[in-house]
Parts: sequence; structure tokens; C-alpha cells
Amino acid sequence: MSANPMSANQPELPAALLSAFGRADSVITISQQAVVANWRYLASLSSPTTETAAVVKADAYGLGASQLAPHLVDAGCRTFFVMSLDEAITLRGALNDSGHDANGHDTSRHDTSGHDKHAVLILGGCHRGQEDEMLAHDITPVINTSEQAERLGKVARERGMTIPVALHIDTGMSRLGLDTQETARLAKQVTEKSPILDGLSPRWLMSHLRAGEDDADPANEAQLHAFTTLRTAFPGIAGSLANSGGTLRGPDFHFDMTRPGIALYGLHPAGMGMSGQQAEQAGRLIPAIRWDARILQIRAAKAGDAVGYNGTHVLVRDSRIATIGVGYADGYMRALGNRAIVVIAGHEAPVIGRVSMDSITVDVTDIPATTLQTASTATVLGDGYNLARMADDAGTIGYEILTRLGQRPRRLYLPA
Amino acid sequence: MSANPMSANQPELPAALLSAFGRADSVITISQQAVVANWRYLASLSSPTTETAAVVKADAYGLGASQLAPHLVDAGCRTFFVMSLDEAITLRGALNDSGHDANGHDTSRHDTSGHDKHAVLILGGCHRGQEDEMLAHDITPVINTSEQAERLGKVARERGMTIPVALHIDTGMSRLGLDTQETARLAKQVTEKSPILDGLSPRWLMSHLRAGEDDADPANEAQLHAFTTLRTAFPGIAGSLANSGGTLRGPDFHFDMTRPGIALYGLHPAGMGMSGQQAEQAGRLIPAIRWDARILQIRAAKAGDAVGYNGTHVLVRDSRIATIGVGYADGYMRALGNRAIVVIAGHEAPVIGRVSMDSITVDVTDIPATTLQTASTATVLGDGYNLARMADDAGTIGYEILTRLGQRPRRLYLPA
Repeated sequence: MSANPMSANQPELPAALLSAFGRADSVITISQQAVVANWRYLASLSSPTTETAAVVKADAYGLGASQLAPHLVDAGCRTFFVMSLDEAITLRGALNDSGHDANGHDTSRHDTSGHDKHAVLILGGCHRGQEDEMLAHDITPVINTSEQAERLGKVARERGMTIPVALHIDTGMSRLGLDTQETARLAKQVTEKSPILDGLSPRWLMSHLRAGEDDADPANEAQLHAFTTLRTAFPGIAGSLANSGGTLRGPDFHFDMTRPGIALYGLHPAGMGMSGQQAEQAGRLIPAIRWDARILQIRAAKAGDAVGYNGTHVLVRDSRIATIGVGYADGYMRALGNRAIVVIAGHEAPVIGRVSMDSITVDVTDIPATTLQTASTATVLGDGYNLARMADDAGTIGYEILTRLGQRPRRLYLPA
Repeated sequence: MSANPMSANQPELPAALLSAFGRADSVITISQQAVVANWRYLASLSSPTTETAAVVKADAYGLGASQLAPHLVDAGCRTFFVMSLDEAITLRGALNDSGHDANGHDTSRHDTSGHDKHAVLILGGCHRGQEDEMLAHDITPVINTSEQAERLGKVARERGMTIPVALHIDTGMSRLGLDTQETARLAKQVTEKSPILDGLSPRWLMSHLRAGEDDADPANEAQLHAFTTLRTAFPGIAGSLANSGGTLRGPDFHFDMTRPGIALYGLHPAGMGMSGQQAEQAGRLIPAIRWDARILQIRAAKAGDAVGYNGTHVLVRDSRIATIGVGYADGYMRALGNRAIVVIAGHEAPVIGRVSMDSITVDVTDIPATTLQTASTATVLGDGYNLARMADDAGTIGYEILTRLGQRPRRLYLPA
């Protein structure tokens, strides 16, 4: 681990990288060890009585929920968040399949009372018609509306069962969650043990920070205050407010459970705009991915030649251009054209011209010919060009880059 | 088909849409019929002696190469282009599996001479170490460098076989393809029947337009002239210059084979910046996809409330906000925040606030309450908000949006 987030270690590639490419033109290397280490670091920030969950929605931010979640279980994670029922059922399958850990510890599916040991929560809630599948797979819904609460209460009573749920109240995003009026009504129903809620067992009370990564945004304190106040109306229910930003913000935000997402994958949520303390935290997070692509061709071009679609880059000198086998269809954002760099054998090379669907063109004129002769791949994301910088160059956030990595790059998982 | 590209028909959804969602939060509906009709329209623009190939790289621009290519075979398409060996082998499998058409016509794998009937070409060429797999699956390489030509010639001679290849010469992109010097050398080798090329059978001579969609770019005429001139050095080899832009540009650009890609999927390559003739052409292309997402929640919010991450939208009136189950992890570009619209039961609703990973927030205050009560889904791409407009709002091109559609939305294929 490095104190400088800009030079944090990247996952180590196997010695014979090119053989790892096989039929593909690029390889995304994912370090399970990094994800586990990041989870442990985030857990270390909270008191022992605070649980640390893991947000693995969007296929673990593009890195593979089924591959990563079992390793988090081994590390002690018990609660997982996804978005949709589809994701939840896939994840439940992966957790059940794992069944053991590297040390032979018991990781069988059920605890002594017959329940699944690991909670899988769906942030989108349970939509009408999904109740049977949700219950069959022991998925816990995050209740965002009164309608959902009332519908699931009815299902529970009809079946003579208890359904564990999380309640999500909105404190400042106007997105998902119970609005002010619904929250007040639900609080009254909880306090008065309304028959409407009979059969529901609220386990968690949740809200979500809208700018947890931003030290300067007063919304953090306002949401913390609102959540603290609202919790008093739901006595005895565990509270959870902190995403990665809230987890890194400090214990005031942790309550009974933190829910880190992006930080698990090695990116500080503040991206490039970090305060000193945030930079120190970022240095503790280990990047979970690197991305290398085949050099498809190295060719000569003359001063005055145009490069790429619509000739947006015109060469000012006789040049050597490498065409690299990664394009926007792979998730290499088109906005990176004429902005990003790649690293070839330790040398930086600027991306020139537009990003194509399947390739990019980089100027390698300044890289020694002897180096180019033996180079077969370029690092498009990793040491020397990290995720925060790539996102900044693309005018977006690292979350979008990770979650939109394409299916075409081969995935290579390094063991935990 | 409509003459107005902005109101072109979208694929018809099944009557019971919500049941099609199942466990997913959004559904991408893909019309195989539209893709086939578009291919037929593009084929109709060329003389009968010009072959019309299909570019199905990047998983048919995100729409599913294995699902779509067999229908193009039924329509008469014989030649397919992909980027990598991985894509080629997957496609070859799908073409072999199809084995029949709807009318019971013979679509068996081999012709009478034992060769595969359908050519599958890899635009990236054959990389070192891929020769065996390429030959085993009857994949045709597009030769981009002298090194590739010489290496494959050697393989052919060692095995006493003939390897069909395409030769790609660069005429103005400085990306893939033989550069000027390499082209001259290769032409000399072809003319003099150099033993270096013994065993290679050049079937196609190709180049690629850098601005085929742009009526005003002089590169089109310059590349046409350069290609025409270079062809004379490769007598008897079929020529191919036209991507979708070139195919729509007119017969001068067609030579012996056109290679449309984006237009197959219903998007005119000129996007929103079309001339009159291009708009007429765009009206003949049928959009191949629509995208609908679940309304996760409709909630009240007050004037002054902030919406979404970092509160980039602040409500100026008491409002109703719908949260829709599609976000940037699904391929709904983050750049669309505060810019795009969705359509709910025929009513437009603006996207307000930032695009989240799994959801967007739209202002539905102006949609009648009775309409909202029965609405369960929103169209995020389709009639009323088409691909050209979405791409323009996102500051990119429709190609990027299609190829980066996520894996999480469910795919629904309408029969051809």
C-alpha cells in the first residue's frame, strides 16, 4: 500500500501476459485480494458493534459479484446489497455454491435456525409479482413506499409468516425511499403496532447520502441530523446511513451498519477532488483492477496525416502510431479521445484521434524503437493512469467507467 | 416506415409488457425484422453484382450477433465482419447452430467443396499464436501488416494449404491497415507472385472511410480516389471501401462489396446532423431497439428539495417525481442527467438530477394523476426519444450508446 493514491499498487499481472489474452484483444485483471483488503480497511474504521456490509449491485460495479462476494463472506461480511431481484437471485446462487472457505471453515448455507446466514437485500424493493421468487430465495426487500410495506404485510399474514425487511427513508435525495409524509405514517404504524404491518419484521432503517464524498457539502450534516431525528420514531431498529463516502467520513455516520460500495473496488468516492485526509484514505485503498490491451499494429505516418475518425488529430511530425485493441465497445469511453494516455513498457503514450469502437490510436514516436520491438501490450488503466484520472479525463466518475466495462475484454481473477 | 426519422416506428412491445420484465428492472426489445429489413434496404442501394456484407462486431453493436446473424443469412447475407478471434468463433458457432431457415431451405454449414458457406472475417487480423484456432474455425483474417501476411504465408506453405485473406490498406485514418510503404511492397509482391505470399489467396482488398457520414468532408473523395488508384496494383481482387456512410453515399463507393454496420441497427451514421437526402435515407431505416424501464416509485417532493446526487436539480415547485429503474450501470449514460427525457404513456417527462448507477429521476408533475396511477413503465429510448437524439444529448454518437448497453437489462427478441 502506498501513501500516494496516484501511485497505488495495481494488481500484478502473470509473467506471461500475452498468453492470458487468448482469443481476446484486452484483459481486465481483477484482484480479489484487493477487494477483501479494502473491505477489511473499511470495517476497521467502525466500532466493533457496527456491521460492515458490501454493496455488490451492478455485478459488483462491473467486477463480478459472483466471483467476489464469496471472498467477502470468508472475510466476515454477512450482508450484501444489490439492486434488482435478478441480481439478488444470481448472488444467492453464488453464495450457496461457494459453501466453504480456504481454511475449511463452515460456510454452509443455513444457520442453526434454518435461515440463510447471509442477508441479500434488494435496494429497488419488491415489485408486484416478485413476492414468491423473493421469498423462495430468502431475499430481503428494502421498502421504499407504503404500497410495498402494505403489500408485503398482506403476503406475510396470508402465509402466516414473518418477512424481514429494511425501511428506506429519504433524507435529501428525492429519489428512492419513503417521503416525509409516508415516513410519518409508517412511524405511527410502527409505534402503534398497526395490523397493516403485522408480519413484517423491520430489521434495518436506512437512508442514503447524496454527497457523502464532498467535505464541503452541508447536505452531509443535514442528512445526518434528519436521520438521527427520524430514527427516534423507529425504536429498536438498526440504523444504516453510510455509503463509501459516509464510511470514510467518520463514526458519526456509521450507526449500526455501513454499506460501502465503490471503495471496496479501490476507488475513493471523491475521485480527483480530494482533501488531504481523503488523499490519505485513498492511499489505503488498493485498486482492484488493471486493464491491458493488445498492440494490434505499429505503423508509420507522415506529418500532415490525419488520425482516426473525422481526422480530429493531424500529425505535426513524421510519427509512429500504435493501434491498441480496446475501444468504446469495450467500455473505453469515447470521451477519452485526444485526452487519455496509455503506458507501454513504462513509457507514456498519448491517445490521439477519436476512440473507435474497437481500437484507439496512440503516438509512440517518443518511445525507443528497441522498446517497441518487444512490446506486445499497453496498459490502458493501472499504475501510471489510474481510475480517478481516467474518469476525470472522460468528464465522469470512476463508478461509470467500472460499471460500463464491456463483456468483450477477458476477465482474469487473481486469487485472494 | 416513416419519412420522418424522428418519428420512425419502434419495435412493438408485447401487450403484457410488465410480465416481460420478470426479475429485471428494464427491458431492451430488439426487432430482428428491423435488422433484416435494414440489410435489404442497404443491399437495394447497390448493383446486383455488389455483395452486401454485415458488420456484427461488438456483439452486433450490442444487440446480439448470435441472435441476429442467422436471420441475415436467411435474407441472403454471406459475409460477416467481427473484430477479434473471440467474436469470430462465437459467431461461427451461432451460424453453424442455426442450420435451417424458416422456409426449410438448406442452410447447412458447408458448400459442395467442403468450405463453410459463410465468410467470417476478423478486422483485427490474426495475432501471433492464433493461427491454429483461426484455421480450425474457417475464419478469414483481414491482413493489416506485412508481418501478418508473411507469417500467414509461412503457415500456409508449411501446411501445404491455401489461406484466404483480405488485405486492408489505409487511405486516410492512420489506424489499422497497411501504410503507404507496406502497400507498395505488397503490391509488388502480388504483381511479381513473390514466394513470400505463396499460400495466401487474397480475396478482398479493403479500406475504411474516416468520415463516410459527413457530406462536407473532402476526405471521402480523397479516399475514394486513393482506393481506386491503389486497386490497380491488385488486379483481380474484389474491392470494398464502404461502411454504412459509404453505402449510403452512393454506388461510386460500393465496388464489389459494401460493409454496413450501424445502419443495420436502424441508425443513420450522420446522427442528428443530416442533410435532406440523409434524412430521407434515415426515414427508410427502422430502429431495431426500444428500451423500457420499470417505474420503481412515484413520490412527492416540495419546492426547494434537491434531487439526486449532489443536488444538481432543485425543485422550483411542489412536484411529483418518478424514479425509473435504469441507470448508468445499465448503459444509460451519466451524461444524460438533467438533459434527457422519458416517455410515460405518451407523455414526455424530463430527467432531473444526476443519473444514478441504477436509476434516474424524472419530473412527472405535469402528467395527469389518472395516467400515472396505471403507468408501470417508462420508455427511455424509442418513439418520442430516439437514438440520434439520445446520443446528441449525451454528447456522443449512437454507436457508443448501443455498444455499451449493459448486461442487466433483459433482452427481448421479437421474431423476424
